[in-house]
Amino acid sequence: MEPVSSTPDRVAPHLLDLARRVSTATLSSQLLKHGFAHAFMLGVRPLRPDLRLAGQAFTLRYIPVREDLERPGEFDNRTNKQRIAVESVGPGDVLVIDARGDTRAATLGDILATRIAQRGAAGIVTDGAFRDTPSIQTIDLPTYAGGQSPIVSTAIHHPQDINVPIGCGGVAVLPGDVIVGDGEGVLVIPRAVAEDVIEAGYEQEQREEFIMSKIRGGSSILGVYPPDERTLQEYAEWKRR
Amino acid sequence: MEPVSSTPDRVAPHLLDLARRVSTATLSSQLLKHGFAHAFMLGVRPLRPDLRLAGQAFTLRYIPVREDLERPGEFDNRTNKQRIAVESVGPGDVLVIDARGDTRAATLGDILATRIAQRGAAGIVTDGAFRDTPSIQTIDLPTYAGGQSPIVSTAIHHPQDINVPIGCGGVAVLPGDVIVGDGEGVLVIPRAVAEDVIEAGYEQEQREEFIMSKIRGGSSILGVYPPDERTLQEYAEWKRR
Amino acid sequence: MEPVSSTPDRVAPHLLDLARRVSTATLSSQLLKHGFAHAFMLGVRPLRPDLRLAGQAFTLRYIPVREDLERPGEFDNRTNKQRIAVESVGPGDVLVIDARGDTRAATLGDILATRIAQRGAAGIVTDGAFRDTPSIQTIDLPTYAGGQSPIVSTAIHHPQDINVPIGCGGVAVLPGDVIVGDGEGVLVIPRAVAEDVIEAGYEQEQREEFIMSKIRGGSSILGVYPPDERTLQEYAEWKRR
Amino acid sequence: MEPVSSTPDRVAPHLLDLARRVSTATLSSQLLKHGFAHAFMLGVRPLRPDLRLAGQAFTLRYIPVREDLERPGEFDNRTNKQRIAVESVGPGDVLVIDARGDTRAATLGDILATRIAQRGAAGIVTDGAFRDTPSIQTIDLPTYAGGQSPIVSTAIHHPQDINVPIGCGGVAVLPGDVIVGDGEGVLVIPRAVAEDVIEAGYEQEQREEFIMSKIRGGSSILGVYPPDERTLQEYAEWKRR
Amino acid sequence: MEPVSSTPDRVAPHLLDLARRVSTATLSSQLLKHGFAHAFMLGVRPLRPDLRLAGQAFTLRYIPVREDLERPGEFDNRTNKQRIAVESVGPGDVLVIDARGDTRAATLGDILATRIAQRGAAGIVTDGAFRDTPSIQTIDLPTYAGGQSPIVSTAIHHPQDINVPIGCGGVAVLPGDVIVGDGEGVLVIPRAVAEDVIEAGYEQEQREEFIMSKIRGGSSILGVYPPDERTLQEYAEWKRR
Amino acid sequence: MEPVSSTPDRVAPHLLDLARRVSTATLSSQLLKHGFAHAFMLGVRPLRPDLRLAGQAFTLRYIPVREDLERPGEFDNRTNKQRIAVESVGPGDVLVIDARGDTRAATLGDILATRIAQRGAAGIVTDGAFRDTPSIQTIDLPTYAGGQSPIVSTAIHHPQDINVPIGCGGVAVLPGDVIVGDGEGVLVIPRAVAEDVIEAGYEQEQREEFIMSKIRGGSSILGVYPPDERTLQEYAEWKRR
Repeated sequence: MEPVSSTPDRVAPHLLDLARRVSTATLSSQLLKHGFAHAFMLGVRPLRPDLRLAGQAFTLRYIPVREDLERPGEFDNRTNKQRIAVESVGPGDVLVIDARGDTRAATLGDILATRIAQRGAAGIVTDGAFRDTPSIQTIDLPTYAGGQSPIVSTAIHHPQDINVPIGCGGVAVLPGDVIVGDGEGVLVIPRAVAEDVIEAGYEQEQREEFIMSKIRGGSSILGVYPPDERTLQEYAEWKRR
Repeated sequence: MEPVSSTPDRVAPHLLDLARRVSTATLSSQLLKHGFAHAFMLGVRPLRPDLRLAGQAFTLRYIPVREDLERPGEFDNRTNKQRIAVESVGPGDVLVIDARGDTRAATLGDILATRIAQRGAAGIVTDGAFRDTPSIQTIDLPTYAGGQSPIVSTAIHHPQDINVPIGCGGVAVLPGDVIVGDGEGVLVIPRAVAEDVIEAGYEQEQREEFIMSKIRGGSSILGVYPPDERTLQEYAEWKRR
Repeated sequence: MEPVSSTPDRVAPHLLDLARRVSTATLSSQLLKHGFAHAFMLGVRPLRPDLRLAGQAFTLRYIPVREDLERPGEFDNRTNKQRIAVESVGPGDVLVIDARGDTRAATLGDILATRIAQRGAAGIVTDGAFRDTPSIQTIDLPTYAGGQSPIVSTAIHHPQDINVPIGCGGVAVLPGDVIVGDGEGVLVIPRAVAEDVIEAGYEQEQREEFIMSKIRGGSSILGVYPPDERTLQEYAEWKRR
Repeated sequence: MEPVSSTPDRVAPHLLDLARRVSTATLSSQLLKHGFAHAFMLGVRPLRPDLRLAGQAFTLRYIPVREDLERPGEFDNRTNKQRIAVESVGPGDVLVIDARGDTRAATLGDILATRIAQRGAAGIVTDGAFRDTPSIQTIDLPTYAGGQSPIVSTAIHHPQDINVPIGCGGVAVLPGDVIVGDGEGVLVIPRAVAEDVIEAGYEQEQREEFIMSKIRGGSSILGVYPPDERTLQEYAEWKRR
Repeated sequence: MEPVSSTPDRVAPHLLDLARRVSTATLSSQLLKHGFAHAFMLGVRPLRPDLRLAGQAFTLRYIPVREDLERPGEFDNRTNKQRIAVESVGPGDVLVIDARGDTRAATLGDILATRIAQRGAAGIVTDGAFRDTPSIQTIDLPTYAGGQSPIVSTAIHHPQDINVPIGCGGVAVLPGDVIVGDGEGVLVIPRAVAEDVIEAGYEQEQREEFIMSKIRGGSSILGVYPPDERTLQEYAEWKRR
Repeated sequence: MEPVSSTPDRVAPHLLDLARRVSTATLSSQLLKHGFAHAFMLGVRPLRPDLRLAGQAFTLRYIPVREDLERPGEFDNRTNKQRIAVESVGPGDVLVIDARGDTRAATLGDILATRIAQRGAAGIVTDGAFRDTPSIQTIDLPTYAGGQSPIVSTAIHHPQDINVPIGCGGVAVLPGDVIVGDGEGVLVIPRAVAEDVIEAGYEQEQREEFIMSKIRGGSSILGVYPPDERTLQEYAEWKRR
């Protein structure tokens, strides 16, 4: 087995830490300002809504199974693309699996998910299903899926390609893209705008925290959300403290 | 901004308290006796299944977005119908949003939800999505939605009308209707029958509590559920105590 | 009311206990080895993911309601097939309801679910909905459903047959089949292969526990998952201890 | 093979002829007057919209396939319920197949459809698929299906029962029910009200023909549709001619 | 009954004639150039793909039926909004019905469709169903629907408003918008850009006709589609002839 | 633009001719005998049910659109993968497009379809939509699609790869696979078994033609379908004539 390299174009770790502190709602607004309107995966839900996800995409593409492409139930770790992907992801990588949204069988189970966590990966995202989901939910790794099914992947899926551009949950994912997730779902940030989007998102998140504190204190939204000049000035002062 | 008045035809607060103690299952049976068979919203789920909802409908109607109706990302609190609705709802009101069941973008997020809670509203119901759902789940306000999406509402929705009859989750909702919800979902009780339905529902709930105590004690359903004369007499005695 | 007998072809209780310790993922792999590829119910989810289900199918078939088949809201315990089924299930039985996947109304509610639990049944499975789901979730009984709806069953369903072969969640269920469930969902094990599948499944579960311990310890999947000769030998030794 | 008898409770042939001259729209209005609101099959479309269907239901119930119930590709005409049904239907019968709305495989193909036509049956209705649909469309037999698929039935379906109550397209169908169809779809008329519904439907159809002639002539709907006293009088005169 | 006025802001008839000669594909490209990306109705199909539609929207909004809003089967032409709409539309109007995409019952049938045609309207569009579709297909009027059902509208729908902004097939429709349709479906052109879009669309249609003639003649797409300078010059000459 | 080569592993033209004379129903039965159960595309329908399709797959893979991958409305014939594919297909090729089943925008329109026909290709298959479908239906080329939409492809799709393994309608398609289609839909025959499947399919088709002639003549299915020894002998004689 020859492991496949992750993208060499890494995002600075402190930026990923920052990204984990910004909601997908806020980041999607920043993406929209850069013109990206197709960034949120539809039908992909967190198994662990309490964890935040931030990392860079390492992609795996499944096609529909065909009886001459593999023998059901057999996995050769040296040639099977799913297995090569599992043993290739490393720190900061998010394994993103294109399963065509088909959840009738799993895309992987708890042993592979544990191995991925052991390798230091940042998370797993699939628009297909996991199997052993009750067990996967006990791993401290942000995981997202379109469903759950105990059926082994080879009943429906054939792993075809590693680190090619894919679609997942209706969104284009290129290797190296920044993948972020919270309890709401998963957002894809194109690599080229990742720094800008995350930093502006963090700034927006702080501003909205201030606005929220005013609203919680009984303020009307008038002049506050969106903020007018006066509120922005108050915010500037609040931030300085 | 000119706030819009809630319905002046208020239900007595103690009746809403009573309604919060009756399950939607029981209330739906009472509605059926009044001939109302289309009262339960399909696909609308609680964000906080631990809270009970009871209040009167204040409606907001969205239509599909159109590029000449608004500029994405801009909200004028004085003219935007969504914003006017948020600053109009008051104690006892439930903001009910007709989003045509389209969950590809949000109908509102945590800042507006917090403002609605601050204004004393009884809850929020939408057959579209919320954004910032993880944050909204921390507000002590019964909220119900058809999904979750970080995408800002203007990507898909245009707020068109306030306090007109709408459809939500496949159910007609008229301003002033009584909206009740529990962990199962949301039920619409037409204003004209609200007192009757809630009071009879409360009576039924007590009777079924008695029946349940018998079943838990090992009784068969024969003669008990539905109750025969003897069981009804036992219930009358039980109630007197 | 004449109760209907459960299958006399019982599975030994210790096997059902064993089955409760094996995941549906593992059991589905064993079923595949016996040639059974259509065994997992689609769209049927646990109300109590913390409980494990194992028992034998006692089936109830609903057809669409028709206005001349019953009067809405009236239930005669002596003739209504739903009620006869409830008072017929016993220890080791799983009531499996074919509701054609239609969740617009319930298939049963908390009083009947409590009665079923009181009768010692092993669980309830429906591809329709339950009503009173918040209350059913408090019963210590594994229950699985396709949805939740407060609407009484007679709005959509007519109970037609007891203990005939049915479809549920897209899977054939014959009376006496072994029904197992965990947080992932429900699997149907044909009666004739139940002993083999459960025992082999238990063996596989132990082996995977060993493999998982190695993966958690930092091992690669190479030679471990699937296990090569050496790993199998290690497992044999581990097991002996 | 022992053929199964059709219902002995036959509708007079001239009534079925009459039924073929009334639209399903009109008949559904008459059914509603008798309190039947769940009579139209959803998702079941005509292969030959130019033909009218009227006959009595001979039902066939499929359950999901299971690998131990039959060997794929083998059909024993003496024991297979599908084959027995085909060789049992006769003049005036409509073979109605409950395929659980699953169209991933066929319920039957052109050879069996031809045999059914040869036996004098009135039509075939399934909420599953046909195979050989291009060929079936050339047979002068009203046929209705939920889809089309070349895949042989045994890939998905197992024929379980003949002439039991079933669901088809979301509607209860009892053996002997009157099944009518036109280009719009299929309607189920309970046997007990068939004469009344068809006769009143024919009367309504004539009246609406008269109304249509007035509308085509330029009349407003005011006083005409629905007809007032004067229009009804005109109709009485028109009819006399 | 007080008829409701159509929009007074009429598009010149020759422009509607022009629009009928341009495909929805071409017009959608022109709309995109004006920034309108949500203009095509999803799931709305022609009953008469041979006819072209062009007219201005006269809207009708349905909400879900409620048992206290009307008595099933009864229609008062003086107060029922559906009936008032039918007797209000005139030459150049397209009746566009918001039925929330619910096709379980009809939105109108052949008598009302005939009356609408008699009044000179340009067509009918609904994202719900028609009843009497076989009969409506014989009327020389472009009609589009989301489905077909013989069930009378009052089983599911209540006509609520006339000539308010609506959603239909996922597209915002404002009274007076230009509605065009061909065999592919229905497109909504905002009133303010109608002249520009139609005229530019007609120009584009001619250019593509020229391009098509070259492709049919064996030309490659290189330099032709999209056209380079030389091809545009050829087109200018071709057009002059 | 560098055109991409079609598979050099060509099927003999007379075999494709033979394939055009066999129904997809018959060919799917032969595929099943070779163990291929996932061969029929779901949701992909013929625009021209009167034409038969047989050719070899030339694949095109779309991923979801992303705003930085292309500028909407602009197509560079030298670099755009869709355009390169169009100018690469040749005699005997079927362009098969993986559009992830997303029909909200087109995958191509009538000018490109005409060019493909001009280049001698055998057909076009997509699980997305076409635009200009009314015009494409006039081309004498077998075309199959999942829907129709006037919206230009770049609104939803980005053409990513040519001649890689894809999924289309839920079926794996490898470059060079034999693609056959009739009025029922599209079937994928793996290259390695194409000769066997087509020849055995042709033989089966003839035998069923004979069986059909007997059924049309009034024969029962007993001993005829499936054929017993005697019928097979009769067939042998019939064939000799």
